[in-house]
Amino acid sequence: MLRRGFLSRINAAQWSRQMSVVAKSLKYTQHGEPQEVLQLVEDKLPDPKDNQVLVKILAAPINPADINTIQGKYPVKPKFPAVGGNECVAEVICVGDKVKGFEAGQHVIPLASGLGTWTTHAVYKEDQLLIVSKKVGLAEAATSTVNPTTAYRMLKDFVQLCPGDTVIQNGANSAVGQAVHQLCRAWGINSVGIVRDRPEIAELKQMLQCLGATEVLTEAEIRTSDIFKSGKLKKPRLAFNCVGGKSATEVSRHLDNGGVLVTYGGMSREPVTVATGPLIFKDIAFRGFWMTRWSKENYSSPERFENVQGDLRADGAGKVRGPQP
Amino acid sequence: MLRRGFLSRINAAQWSRQMSVVAKSLKYTQHGEPQEVLQLVEDKLPDPKDNQVLVKILAAPINPADINTIQGKYPVKPKFPAVGGNECVAEVICVGDKVKGFEAGQHVIPLASGLGTWTTHAVYKEDQLLIVSKKVGLAEAATSTVNPTTAYRMLKDFVQLCPGDTVIQNGANSAVGQAVHQLCRAWGINSVGIVRDRPEIAELKQMLQCLGATEVLTEAEIRTSDIFKSGKLKKPRLAFNCVGGKSATEVSRHLDNGGVLVTYGGMSREPVTVATGPLIFKDIAFRGFWMTRWSKENYSSPERFENVQGDLRADGAGKVRGPQP
Repeated sequence: MLRRGFLSRINAAQWSRQMSVVAKSLKYTQHGEPQEVLQLVEDKLPDPKDNQVLVKILAAPINPADINTIQGKYPVKPKFPAVGGNECVAEVICVGDKVKGFEAGQHVIPLASGLGTWTTHAVYKEDQLLIVSKKVGLAEAATSTVNPTTAYRMLKDFVQLCPGDTVIQNGANSAVGQAVHQLCRAWGINSVGIVRDRPEIAELKQMLQCLGATEVLTEAEIRTSDIFKSGKLKKPRLAFNCVGGKSATEVSRHLDNGGVLVTYGGMSREPVTVATGPLIFKDIAFRGFWMTRWSKENYSSPERFENVQGDLRADGAGKVRGPQP
Repeated sequence: MLRRGFLSRINAAQWSRQMSVVAKSLKYTQHGEPQEVLQLVEDKLPDPKDNQVLVKILAAPINPADINTIQGKYPVKPKFPAVGGNECVAEVICVGDKVKGFEAGQHVIPLASGLGTWTTHAVYKEDQLLIVSKKVGLAEAATSTVNPTTAYRMLKDFVQLCPGDTVIQNGANSAVGQAVHQLCRAWGINSVGIVRDRPEIAELKQMLQCLGATEVLTEAEIRTSDIFKSGKLKKPRLAFNCVGGKSATEVSRHLDNGGVLVTYGGMSREPVTVATGPLIFKDIAFRGFWMTRWSKENYSSPERFENVQGDLRADGAGKVRGPQP
């Protein structure tokens, strides 16, 4: 077993002479249902060279996109054999002799996708990693690069929001939805969350309101609600949709003139239906957001780090809590 | 009968002493089907005062929006009694004593909507009118402020097009569609037009190709066409939709990554159906365009005149032909 306490006292040259690491990974060599194609495989890892960093994975989440990638239903196609997973928080074990920014014992998260994080250990490149404070919880750090950053970018990139403005979203208790509520609260923006009705609806509403939701309504309640007509809240100029179908249509119906509905998921597997009137006469725009594309297009941009560092507050405790069950 | 030859020799003061004009207008005092609510009404017009201009209407078209306004199905609600019509070309008969930019005999078009152009004569304000060359055909001038300007703005305002780029549109033989083909040819842009199949399809294709269409395909033909896959034409980055339903979905399917589908009409009365995949993974945006809003928001903008003056070439013959039957 690898222990940080021991490893942090030896340097890279000592490491390579003294021991090696066997990684246990969830690998697949063809597309299919994860339970059928994933296999637990052991690989002896090479020592980290040059700009490489050997890490031990401390926690790695399962995102829907990870499942879809394995199924072959995602636009990103891995080279086989592939290791599942795109996110994690890891501990640096040792580094190649050209690595300057990392040292053993630090916590890091991946900045690139497709690194295969469902493994016990991995060798990554220095520029694929970002240091995070060890004060940030493992759950928060391990889930920081996909869902909170999706929420962050969707709130920043489509409409210029001011304090007092309103954002509306369906799937409000998704990992992205929870981050939206928290960021809105931090920035003084009203957030209205739409959720499906369920037996424990009161507890769910309370949980989301504790995170920062201004209002939480079921799909049925939003249809008859007068929170916007009454002037209680400003009509939303920005809406997020991860459901599709009637839910997306209903959410778009509440948008103010010139508003934007951003789709980042389609849980109902139904398309977004857009009446001609709102498009033309209310100038409602229907857009999409894909974190993977944004990250590729902005790989070296300083903006790329502000969300992760800002949200997690590398100087202290997490600002945005990890997803609640 | 009012004759320009005679009237242009008398000044405004003489006019007001010598004669008055009775305008015959198509008026309505309630919403309904045009044939039921429109009445031919005679009104004695006041002499033009101050910044007013008395005009004789030479030609005025019927646009679908004019019908919808009378039916009460349009977001613009007139004050009753109202005169139908929003476009025309007119001749200046005489002007108020503060008018500086107009004189009798000139041809003018309205810059404002809702002026009620289905009349023989009218008194408008100086700032509601724009002079057009008398070399421009009456059909071209009378139809210049709605459809060609819609085409012009949709080509300018959503995607930065370069020569060699491709635009795709359904309803390709609409008045807007015809203007799109002509402007694309003038600017070196490929335009692909989709039309419904019909008995005289060969003649329609020829007519649209004469106007400037690069390719004209029926709804069935576009489904199996390989003009984009084969590389014959670059994939479109901009699409126009005035039909909705399956036609809009089909058009959006051919858009390149980051492309925009602009809806300006909904002839099928079916909504635009937007699959989640293209929104998220291809970054296809679904927008709308409404000329009335654009004109209001840009009433005094120099841009407002460039399309009318540029398209019609006030110095000579019309660059964009009026709608073909």
